[in-house]
Amino acid sequence: MTHHDLDETPHHLWTTTHEPRLEIASGDTVSFAVEDAVNGRYDDVPTGGAMPLSDPARPAYPLAGPILVAGAQPGDVLEVEILEAAGTKGFGWTSMVPGEGLLGDDFAEPYLYRWEIDGDHTDMGDVARVPIRPFFGVVGVCPDTVDPLPVMPPGHFGGNLDCRDLVVGSSVFLPVQVDGARLALGDPHAAQGDGEVCVSAIEWAARGTVRVRLHQGRRIPGPRFRTPGPLRAGIEDAGYYATTGIAPSLMDAAKDAVRAMIDHLGHTYGLEPRDAYVLCSVAVDLKISEVVDAPNWVVSAYLPLSVMR
Amino acid sequence: MTHHDLDETPHHLWTTTHEPRLEIASGDTVSFAVEDAVNGRYDDVPTGGAMPLSDPARPAYPLAGPILVAGAQPGDVLEVEILEAAGTKGFGWTSMVPGEGLLGDDFAEPYLYRWEIDGDHTDMGDVARVPIRPFFGVVGVCPDTVDPLPVMPPGHFGGNLDCRDLVVGSSVFLPVQVDGARLALGDPHAAQGDGEVCVSAIEWAARGTVRVRLHQGRRIPGPRFRTPGPLRAGIEDAGYYATTGIAPSLMDAAKDAVRAMIDHLGHTYGLEPRDAYVLCSVAVDLKISEVVDAPNWVVSAYLPLSVMR
Repeated sequence: MTHHDLDETPHHLWTTTHEPRLEIASGDTVSFAVEDAVNGRYDDVPTGGAMPLSDPARPAYPLAGPILVAGAQPGDVLEVEILEAAGTKGFGWTSMVPGEGLLGDDFAEPYLYRWEIDGDHTDMGDVARVPIRPFFGVVGVCPDTVDPLPVMPPGHFGGNLDCRDLVVGSSVFLPVQVDGARLALGDPHAAQGDGEVCVSAIEWAARGTVRVRLHQGRRIPGPRFRTPGPLRAGIEDAGYYATTGIAPSLMDAAKDAVRAMIDHLGHTYGLEPRDAYVLCSVAVDLKISEVVDAPNWVVSAYLPLSVMR
Repeated sequence: MTHHDLDETPHHLWTTTHEPRLEIASGDTVSFAVEDAVNGRYDDVPTGGAMPLSDPARPAYPLAGPILVAGAQPGDVLEVEILEAAGTKGFGWTSMVPGEGLLGDDFAEPYLYRWEIDGDHTDMGDVARVPIRPFFGVVGVCPDTVDPLPVMPPGHFGGNLDCRDLVVGSSVFLPVQVDGARLALGDPHAAQGDGEVCVSAIEWAARGTVRVRLHQGRRIPGPRFRTPGPLRAGIEDAGYYATTGIAPSLMDAAKDAVRAMIDHLGHTYGLEPRDAYVLCSVAVDLKISEVVDAPNWVVSAYLPLSVMR
């Protein structure tokens, strides 16, 4: 059956003590709406504007759920098929915070970029046009904890996976940790590159619909997912320009690849470093080209050229 | 002009003391042929057969070149456009070596898988059909060294990048390190996944043709490349199945993602772990889904479902 009656009171931490907002059966679909990761706090901030401090009245990482799935037990797999992910406001934002993100040491000042979103794309001035590919950064079952855990780090229960390919048509497979599974979703993103390098995607508020299926007795060690077809259809026809980072640490290689891409975006398109970093976070994909030619690994940052105007 | 007269005596180490095999001008094309990374030593080894020990008479990593480019100086960029990459034998191999590769601690025995290559694909029994996408694992200018350096690790000069997207139609941009650039290519691969996890791709012997252009006075910190269009055209129409690794280290996350994929390939398709590991190395792509949700990063391993029969 289809549930349009989810109690939309959000929760903000992982714990089994939250009152369930709904109970469903395997095969049911659920519709929901959820605010962005800062609970709307940046709704009125223009590009370059000051970001309001955190507000206890508007706690971060609001999640829809928890949703109990009848019969789900540890050792089962919960399949979450994404049927709908659509923005509920006409804008989004990307921010950076000193000390956070891949290059948190390179950018000493906080910065917010506001995106006006018009249907299937959003523009960075006349330099870049980013295609909208909505997904939920958080798709998780509840970890087996009474002590509340923050939403920020993902875990074997899923959660804040921030995987850009969890778009409509994909299915996420999660290992159930507690009775009833306690599914929750949130952190809606309008677009993101693999890596989410500056610590945020294009963050927005969204509604969603998922179909939930229970697979009993198949243990998996962590989240998995299936995509319905090509990953970048319509985005990559113009090919890619890619930079590399080469280092004995994948982290250092990733940093160098993104630094080189920021250099490229500045040199070729005139983007300021902070805007280039924002663009990397929402449109550039990090791949591990090789992780075996000891002692140097190669991480590559792929810019789809169709994004550049 | 087009050069078909490259002296094909290979070299096997990076050093500026090698006698150049050819001198060309910017805009010229060069054709060459090169043996596989073990210089043909595994040509007669069947799947599961013993791998002959290294042989001083057949040193590993034969490279075509060095090719001098007239006028190239440190501070310039050498563009290498790949015009041709085609196998010269009807087979290839993938091997694992204890202690090497991403999961060198998980696989205690050496193993070689031999691929019979028929045109645009090669089969792993009746389980998987891997599309052939040839490229050269090594594309490099010579580092500024007289003391010989091994070919294995790549560096800011390029070299053993093992980047699967350097197929025909792509261009590699390399920062020139020494006068004349001293371009060299080798390590031909018939197919590889991002990561090359078991330490080898589908290794084969190949011929190639490249067009070389010199861009003077544009410093770049390391290799870059451009691709001509979609990366996985014809490979991803059936979508992907992906596993994840979630850990405070990208390396541990990559290992866990591949371990989970090996589990999936065994559970779903009946592959033995070592064959599943081989298939990961030649057809599964490692992506950094997020590297910012401290303290846990997500690396995902993507299996294109069109590969599975």
